[in-house]
Amino acid sequence: MIHIQKEENFSDWYNDIVERAQLSDKRYPIKGMNVWTAYGWKVMRQIDSYIREELDRTGHDEVSFPLLIPETEFQKEKEHIKGFDSEVYWVTHAGANELDVRLVLRPTSETAMYPMFALWVRSHSDLPLKVYQLVNTFRYETKQTRSFIRVREIHFFESHTCHVDEEDAQRQVEEDFVILDRIMRKLCLPYSLLRRTEWDKFPGAHYTVGIDTSMPNGRSLQIGSIHHYLTNFSKPYEISYETEDGGREFAHQTTFGMSERLVGAVIGVHGDDKGLVLPPDVAPLQVVIIPIPMKGKAEVVQKAAEDIGARLQSCGLRVKVDDRDERPGSKFFDWEIRGVPLRLELGMRDMEGGVVTYARRDNGEKGTIPLEDLEKGTVSMLEKISEDMNAKAWEKHRGSVADVESLDDPPAKTLRFGWCGEEVCGQTIEEKFGLTLLGTPYGKDGERRSCIVCGAESEKLGHAARSM
Amino acid sequence: MIHIQKEENFSDWYNDIVERAQLSDKRYPIKGMNVWTAYGWKVMRQIDSYIREELDRTGHDEVSFPLLIPETEFQKEKEHIKGFDSEVYWVTHAGANELDVRLVLRPTSETAMYPMFALWVRSHSDLPLKVYQLVNTFRYETKQTRSFIRVREIHFFESHTCHVDEEDAQRQVEEDFVILDRIMRKLCLPYSLLRRTEWDKFPGAHYTVGIDTSMPNGRSLQIGSIHHYLTNFSKPYEISYETEDGGREFAHQTTFGMSERLVGAVIGVHGDDKGLVLPPDVAPLQVVIIPIPMKGKAEVVQKAAEDIGARLQSCGLRVKVDDRDERPGSKFFDWEIRGVPLRLELGMRDMEGGVVTYARRDNGEKGTIPLEDLEKGTVSMLEKISEDMNAKAWEKHRGSVADVESLDDPPAKTLRFGWCGEEVCGQTIEEKFGLTLLGTPYGKDGERRSCIVCGAESEKLGHAARSM
Repeated sequence: MIHIQKEENFSDWYNDIVERAQLSDKRYPIKGMNVWTAYGWKVMRQIDSYIREELDRTGHDEVSFPLLIPETEFQKEKEHIKGFDSEVYWVTHAGANELDVRLVLRPTSETAMYPMFALWVRSHSDLPLKVYQLVNTFRYETKQTRSFIRVREIHFFESHTCHVDEEDAQRQVEEDFVILDRIMRKLCLPYSLLRRTEWDKFPGAHYTVGIDTSMPNGRSLQIGSIHHYLTNFSKPYEISYETEDGGREFAHQTTFGMSERLVGAVIGVHGDDKGLVLPPDVAPLQVVIIPIPMKGKAEVVQKAAEDIGARLQSCGLRVKVDDRDERPGSKFFDWEIRGVPLRLELGMRDMEGGVVTYARRDNGEKGTIPLEDLEKGTVSMLEKISEDMNAKAWEKHRGSVADVESLDDPPAKTLRFGWCGEEVCGQTIEEKFGLTLLGTPYGKDGERRSCIVCGAESEKLGHAARSM
Repeated sequence: MIHIQKEENFSDWYNDIVERAQLSDKRYPIKGMNVWTAYGWKVMRQIDSYIREELDRTGHDEVSFPLLIPETEFQKEKEHIKGFDSEVYWVTHAGANELDVRLVLRPTSETAMYPMFALWVRSHSDLPLKVYQLVNTFRYETKQTRSFIRVREIHFFESHTCHVDEEDAQRQVEEDFVILDRIMRKLCLPYSLLRRTEWDKFPGAHYTVGIDTSMPNGRSLQIGSIHHYLTNFSKPYEISYETEDGGREFAHQTTFGMSERLVGAVIGVHGDDKGLVLPPDVAPLQVVIIPIPMKGKAEVVQKAAEDIGARLQSCGLRVKVDDRDERPGSKFFDWEIRGVPLRLELGMRDMEGGVVTYARRDNGEKGTIPLEDLEKGTVSMLEKISEDMNAKAWEKHRGSVADVESLDDPPAKTLRFGWCGEEVCGQTIEEKFGLTLLGTPYGKDGERRSCIVCGAESEKLGHAARSM
């Protein structure tokens, strides 16, 4: 069985892996609306659990808002509605009745939440207000769809906050970066924070920071974003509060959101020609134990494998003993496709030596763990895998950026170059490169370069790439 | 502040409690689509965690299907579409386009799942197929809405199974009863299993078992249902498998579903004039610790309260130390509204005596727990509360049923009576009583009585009540 090579044809490799690892079924009779099958949903839920952990830790309350938004509310912020008008689904009828007010399926929840925030926020003592939800959102995608990366029903988390002033909202943005970093370490995903151009920011935002990772085909994949809204939404939605001295001010708002693209990024960044490679923290199974049968000793080995499984399970690991009636090699193959981080093999020789043989999924390394150190040895092995996956992915991500000095002959990478920040030069860059201008690094001290279009000196380093 | 009395005006009491305990906000600008605020959502998620625990334990896989269903799939089972036609929401447009095929927002997921089951089920070795999902469903309710009990966006779990034959599907129904009972014990909710009448069963079902509990106003509340479909859906959706001897058979199917009405039932069954009374297993906070300040000793007491909180938290309990700058009495009041099962009060006198004072929310009982037995004493107190809440609720539920011998002068309860099982007599009963005929007890040996309409001897005991 010859499989598609990741390096040669990333796009087909990706689709093939999603199918063979049984992460998602795209045969559902609506294009771009896929079924989360059990294994894929377990990965997503594991990621969701870290999102909840981080947002709870930082004082956000989990809530759940209705899916449907009345057209009247949806239209209140002019830029916002302009940005989403062409890609929303409309509910127009219920039963046999035509609705008086059409309802939109949320593409994101600003316009669902903010009418309620206007009721909840009364005084400065109600601030900051920090909530989040994990929900399905909808976009009428017209481009070609791809599991987890470009779909029409999107599993999504969004946090929304209200603050007394711009500075406190800015502190929230900084907190979001910390939250993001802690989640990304678990997923072993590298990323860049790029402040989007004015013409590509979120409709209605003051500024947008895109969270981008790089895929093996040289393309950039946006996996989330953080927005500072100033009072752009609080004014039309009338979210105001009484100040300490009895005045009235509009709240300053931020949002942070990431989607199931995180699963797509994990597949693309870590997978190899044998299948998925899952970071230990997101793997539904972290360890698979495979008894190596020996004539007349099958039961002894089976029993010992189960014993090992029970020991690892009781220290909180997600473990499976594969006792199917199949050849070990075929079991290895199955679990490699599914990306289980650590395989333990147990045969008579291992038992006699008081060890278990391990094989790491990420780099193929093999060795033994003494049975007396089983728990400690396995836990630290999984930690090491996570560390190594992070290091390797970050190295690749950094290597995916190329500095260019002119508009000629760009390599198939993310490009970095001097840019004066003007839209007219930005447009020239996009046209000449045939790439998307992703923006400029958020918060980094600018290196002084000349704009590759107009030559003006600039502190901004533009980043451009083809997007997934 | 005089509150509404539960016994006198259940309906207003219910609405008032939902608002004051901050379980849900119904001011969202679409009637019957409410916002799950933080506290209510925590209760729901706690219940969801038990649903997952039980369904995982019994070998169901969690999946997540798309929300939207093409009209073409939705119409395949004739009874089903007839039953739902008047209460579904239709997506007809996306962006500026009118869709070729209209899409329905799932009212339940048979018609979303079964086209996929047809692809997944190939051979007898693929059976049984057991999946479930926790999702939002939609019904265009025309009756008056009520938080958790009658809403238009419904938080819902649904399990769907496929089996080789009717008997194996029947075994699944029996397993569902066990799952149900284990969940209901945690919620301290009593229930009746009533086989619905032919004219009130689920559209497309072979038979439907309604799961009903009784509310304090004498009305019956359906909190879930279990359906046996035979091959009623597998035929139109072509879910068939190859038998061991190479033949081809249609799968036999079942479903089991319960909704956020579970939260409504918990509120209605357990609450009292002071507010919510939450069963310990579903309470977001199981224990609240309130330091009783004493002049000059505030810090010592506060420190000791935090110490107690940490000890209880480390044995897995959900605990909060209320250190707000408020009078203890006002704190008691707040946590009583929110239904926290156990309050611990700690003052200097308690500390000197080496105890902590407790107050049970369910029955108001007060006493002390020795600090040296704190963990064991608290855990067993919570178990006792759960036991007592179960016993009390079951007693009330049993007492809510009245045997009647004729069609005259029914009391405001659930009525039990002889019924021959014929539709014509059933219709007479419904008309005369002005009640809904809920069905006949599932699986119990019938007591022989005469039908209260035609007098024919019958083994069926009809149950009728007003529904919420």
